[in-house]
Amino acid sequence: MNGTRINFPLILINFKCYREASGKRGLELARVAEQISRETGVCIAVAPQLTDLAFIASQVEIPVFSQHVDDVEPGSHTGHVTLEAIKDAGAVGTLINHSERRVRADQIDVVVKKARTLNLTTVVCTNTPEVTAAMAALGPDMVAIEPPELIGTGIPVSRAKPEVVTSSVELVRRVNPQVRVLCGAGITTGEDVAAALRLGTVGVLLASGVVKAKDWRKAIFDLIEPIIKK
Amino acid sequence: MNGTRINFPLILINFKCYREASGKRGLELARVAEQISRETGVCIAVAPQLTDLAFIASQVEIPVFSQHVDDVEPGSHTGHVTLEAIKDAGAVGTLINHSERRVRADQIDVVVKKARTLNLTTVVCTNTPEVTAAMAALGPDMVAIEPPELIGTGIPVSRAKPEVVTSSVELVRRVNPQVRVLCGAGITTGEDVAAALRLGTVGVLLASGVVKAKDWRKAIFDLIEPIIKK
Amino acid sequence: MNGTRINFPLILINFKCYREASGKRGLELARVAEQISRETGVCIAVAPQLTDLAFIASQVEIPVFSQHVDDVEPGSHTGHVTLEAIKDAGAVGTLINHSERRVRADQIDVVVKKARTLNLTTVVCTNTPEVTAAMAALGPDMVAIEPPELIGTGIPVSRAKPEVVTSSVELVRRVNPQVRVLCGAGITTGEDVAAALRLGTVGVLLASGVVKAKDWRKAIFDLIEPIIKK
Amino acid sequence: MNGTRINFPLILINFKCYREASGKRGLELARVAEQISRETGVCIAVAPQLTDLAFIASQVEIPVFSQHVDDVEPGSHTGHVTLEAIKDAGAVGTLINHSERRVRADQIDVVVKKARTLNLTTVVCTNTPEVTAAMAALGPDMVAIEPPELIGTGIPVSRAKPEVVTSSVELVRRVNPQVRVLCGAGITTGEDVAAALRLGTVGVLLASGVVKAKDWRKAIFDLIEPIIKK
Repeated sequence: MNGTRINFPLILINFKCYREASGKRGLELARVAEQISRETGVCIAVAPQLTDLAFIASQVEIPVFSQHVDDVEPGSHTGHVTLEAIKDAGAVGTLINHSERRVRADQIDVVVKKARTLNLTTVVCTNTPEVTAAMAALGPDMVAIEPPELIGTGIPVSRAKPEVVTSSVELVRRVNPQVRVLCGAGITTGEDVAAALRLGTVGVLLASGVVKAKDWRKAIFDLIEPIIKK
Repeated sequence: MNGTRINFPLILINFKCYREASGKRGLELARVAEQISRETGVCIAVAPQLTDLAFIASQVEIPVFSQHVDDVEPGSHTGHVTLEAIKDAGAVGTLINHSERRVRADQIDVVVKKARTLNLTTVVCTNTPEVTAAMAALGPDMVAIEPPELIGTGIPVSRAKPEVVTSSVELVRRVNPQVRVLCGAGITTGEDVAAALRLGTVGVLLASGVVKAKDWRKAIFDLIEPIIKK
Repeated sequence: MNGTRINFPLILINFKCYREASGKRGLELARVAEQISRETGVCIAVAPQLTDLAFIASQVEIPVFSQHVDDVEPGSHTGHVTLEAIKDAGAVGTLINHSERRVRADQIDVVVKKARTLNLTTVVCTNTPEVTAAMAALGPDMVAIEPPELIGTGIPVSRAKPEVVTSSVELVRRVNPQVRVLCGAGITTGEDVAAALRLGTVGVLLASGVVKAKDWRKAIFDLIEPIIKK
Repeated sequence: MNGTRINFPLILINFKCYREASGKRGLELARVAEQISRETGVCIAVAPQLTDLAFIASQVEIPVFSQHVDDVEPGSHTGHVTLEAIKDAGAVGTLINHSERRVRADQIDVVVKKARTLNLTTVVCTNTPEVTAAMAALGPDMVAIEPPELIGTGIPVSRAKPEVVTSSVELVRRVNPQVRVLCGAGITTGEDVAAALRLGTVGVLLASGVVKAKDWRKAIFDLIEPIIKK
């Protein structure tokens, strides 16, 4: 059991805006993840809906990420999400630039630099090897390559487009070897996770594969099975 | 004591992204508002930071608003805020189109129509009498006219630009008389609140006047003093 | 022949970003429209690609509109389009808020007010009767109701959703009777134009029905046939 | 005299939305640049207002750039600027991501890749060394580092922040040595241009220093003086 410390391989579950994981149900899913993490020692992190961030982060002992953060300072910014707010909410870090919520490179630059001073972990999502290399140049803790056309399909990037993952890993190594690489899109099984790790990543980012599963516990155990064996 | 029911005059306190009202301090401020509401019967609503919405709404018995909502359905919309999510979080409604987070008229149209079916209250912020009339045509529960140049100045709209408030009230009456009008910008004292009501509004939207006050309890009592007397 | 003066019924042809009407071909299409306008006296206006605006407006004697305008003053706004620039380019007015380029109500308010001082004509596009009413409250010269789901389909709004047009006309009459109503989406034939006029509009906004036609001259004559007869 | 071919050192004059260089006055300024380019052999390129692009590019024989381009294909995209449109307009390339018109990295990735197939030159503007490195990873022809706080000040980046330029040049060399570096912000004199070249750039991007000068011819000659001497 690792509490809110991040370690690898990392399984990062994005609740998106799925109603299956909204409000109290979001808390339940986070608790299932926490329970399995405790039982197995695998690092399972969650990114709940923005409006549930403090609610969930205050009640579970696993790493909780924000789904998005804005590049604004605390102050007069109604309707925005600051790094300070997610820290006060109990999050350990944030996704940024998800394909469903892209932001600009100069904004990511601001967020990555400031997150470092606040001890918050940044995971910048990307769509192509070139964009992955670009985002690695900004120095986040992790990048997460996700070909948007595979998101939500159940067809894993590791099988459909392994070369996107491997060339992302390779470019990141060249541009900024301290940045870790996750991959996502279509991940639903332990086999997908194992393939992702073989391709050079340190974990996966996934959403519907867990959130929309009928049995959350079973879905997560399926995913982490190859990691536990190790 | 009215619980989470909205009634009028309404004092709506927007926490913006002020760190003074983030996380646990946000909850404290909401509790101060709740306590005063209980003591006086005045309807005091709060709009906490997005990331604190469920955290705060699950712990206080006053109307809690979201600061913003997106026009998307539950689903694959990482980093967005749905009406369903704010309802699941325990909010009674939402601000939309605040000067610090403007959205498009077609998006407000979608949100207003859908909020009605979910029994959520909509408060559309505006900046000029013409935009106020336009937003009233979309049929929200309330509009809140706030000349942006006065926001955060401590110079109340009711004194600096009373004609903006009165012509907004008049245009709304002509376009859609069922829509209630709030006003905001520069509101800090009970006198400002009284003036706002005299100009034809049903209450005020304010932020720094309370959030940045050294003594929250005193600041809120100052504000509602003319309403209690009534 | 009316030169660049707008009169009604108005046929407004939007070139969008169609390559069929880009650069020199855009100029050719504008010249076809000019020729027919001269022959028939029908007011045919064009909205060329942004980058062709001055190029085309400087060479034809029909009303030329911008497809979009930003709410910024002349100055340090690289990559934006000012009202002053479109005036200097020779345009008589601008579309704003097209479904493919929506902007915010406060921005439209700024543009409409300023266009009036520059003697530029504003046509605000809308998608629902409620949004049409809202935009009419801002006082543009015209609104153009176009249900986005019909755009480019060849199924005319006047046949598929006549009630959207008639209730738009009715709401505009109530909110601001000085605003004229156009309709668009799926318009390709003279019958569609005649139907649009019967529903209370003063003309049509269309694009692919003309731009993508093999024979521009024939396509435009088809459209205006019922107007010439009158 | 080089016609529309780009060579180095490059002086790229951005007309922004300055009314001093709008419409016919924009054409005049482009003609002054053309004349001086002819007399001296120095490559002077211009980026006119979007609405003047075809108007100016069709009348001068120097490299003309768009100030911005969208990542959309030709088609139903009212109010957008496509790469095809700027090519049809006669431009040789485009600025993208100017501090006054930032776009997202995934959009720049699309534009850079496609511009290559259309033989259009891309200049990606940036604000910090890290963002410059990131944009170089996308493989544009040039990046242009411009600290936004110096833009329009007349205080040249080469004097106020030479380390921003040199570390940008160094990072680009490491990430993608084929990408050329321009710098901008506060450039007004020949000395500024000489300093920029000494710091490792291949030219400058500037705007008000020329556009707002009383005597365009004198302002440009001042700028290129150290290059002519060479």
